[in-house]
Amino acid sequence: MEFSSKLLENAVYEMSQLPGIGKRTALRLVLHLLRQPESQTAHLVSALGTLRKEIKFCKNCHSISDDQICDICSNNSRFKDIICVVEDIRDVMAIESTGQYRGLYHVLGGKISPLDGIGPQDLTISSLITKAKSGEVKELIFALSATMEGDTTNFYIYKQLEEITIKTSTIARGISVNDELEYADEVTLGRSILNRIPFENALKNP
Amino acid sequence: MEFSSKLLENAVYEMSQLPGIGKRTALRLVLHLLRQPESQTAHLVSALGTLRKEIKFCKNCHSISDDQICDICSNNSRFKDIICVVEDIRDVMAIESTGQYRGLYHVLGGKISPLDGIGPQDLTISSLITKAKSGEVKELIFALSATMEGDTTNFYIYKQLEEITIKTSTIARGISVNDELEYADEVTLGRSILNRIPFENALKNP
Repeated sequence: MEFSSKLLENAVYEMSQLPGIGKRTALRLVLHLLRQPESQTAHLVSALGTLRKEIKFCKNCHSISDDQICDICSNNSRFKDIICVVEDIRDVMAIESTGQYRGLYHVLGGKISPLDGIGPQDLTISSLITKAKSGEVKELIFALSATMEGDTTNFYIYKQLEEITIKTSTIARGISVNDELEYADEVTLGRSILNRIPFENALKNP
Repeated sequence: MEFSSKLLENAVYEMSQLPGIGKRTALRLVLHLLRQPESQTAHLVSALGTLRKEIKFCKNCHSISDDQICDICSNNSRFKDIICVVEDIRDVMAIESTGQYRGLYHVLGGKISPLDGIGPQDLTISSLITKAKSGEVKELIFALSATMEGDTTNFYIYKQLEEITIKTSTIARGISVNDELEYADEVTLGRSILNRIPFENALKNP
């Protein structure tokens, strides 16, 4: 791509550094901004700049927060002795939107992935182990994605907890509500049979 | 979507104002920036901000330029009496990349589109007519997209030029090089038969 303007070329280059945004899309986005009132670019630039500079991570759960301690961790009506271990803030938002969980979270910031050069020391695992060993936590719920990296991370944390008594669980995998059995993949269907639950329990949680 | 951070919510909102970027994609992009070094966000923010503030449009062809007159218009080896009329700078870049055109451009900044509220006065048409009437231009090449809006715009400009003698042409529509006839749409195929060219010409421009 040949640009007639260095300013334009630079803006397109920086935009195309975002994941999933190629040069052509970046050019389309930048030209869109040029056609809009200057205030739109000003707002975008200020929102991104402020976020990156002033971003805080909750000292307790490591989730993104505007304060030292996030709203969930500082909420007194939540159970402090159950911790749901998730990968990032999107998982927190997804679980919160169900309205089914009243405990706290622990955001790992990723999964152990040797191929991507992410080891346990790059995640907030040691802070989780410290919390678990403090004796104030009764249960850890693993809610990482069911991939090899997710399973590795779960297992790594699980091994670190061998010396202490703490209940650990993992969220249920199975057929999605409303899904037809014939379209489910065999691994999921297999797990949902192995991990079947008493019918009375299903009646209680419709 | 429920956000635990106003800063995050604001950044995601501004990002999702870009065309084709929904809330989920915006969140993914913003979280990506948070995982990268602070300098990446700083570069993006500064590139966009500087572009929007310091952007200039060439006084002659209205293309995006770092100077008052763009590199193409100020290039003495280009033919000043042929003007190719295009919609935006992406078309200039596309035509330049062919290396087949040695004239100047005129960037309209869009097409006449009553449905989108874009009339002739929103485009740089009057400046084009002035240029055409100056007597310094021999030929106008219309290179707008072959849509109803493009055809309307071509025709509107064409009507404005009735009183003066100027050659007008439009870029050839036809079957793409390397395309199979059986997969071509019938309008394009029909046009390519109606506007067939002498075989000797095709031999000269392989």
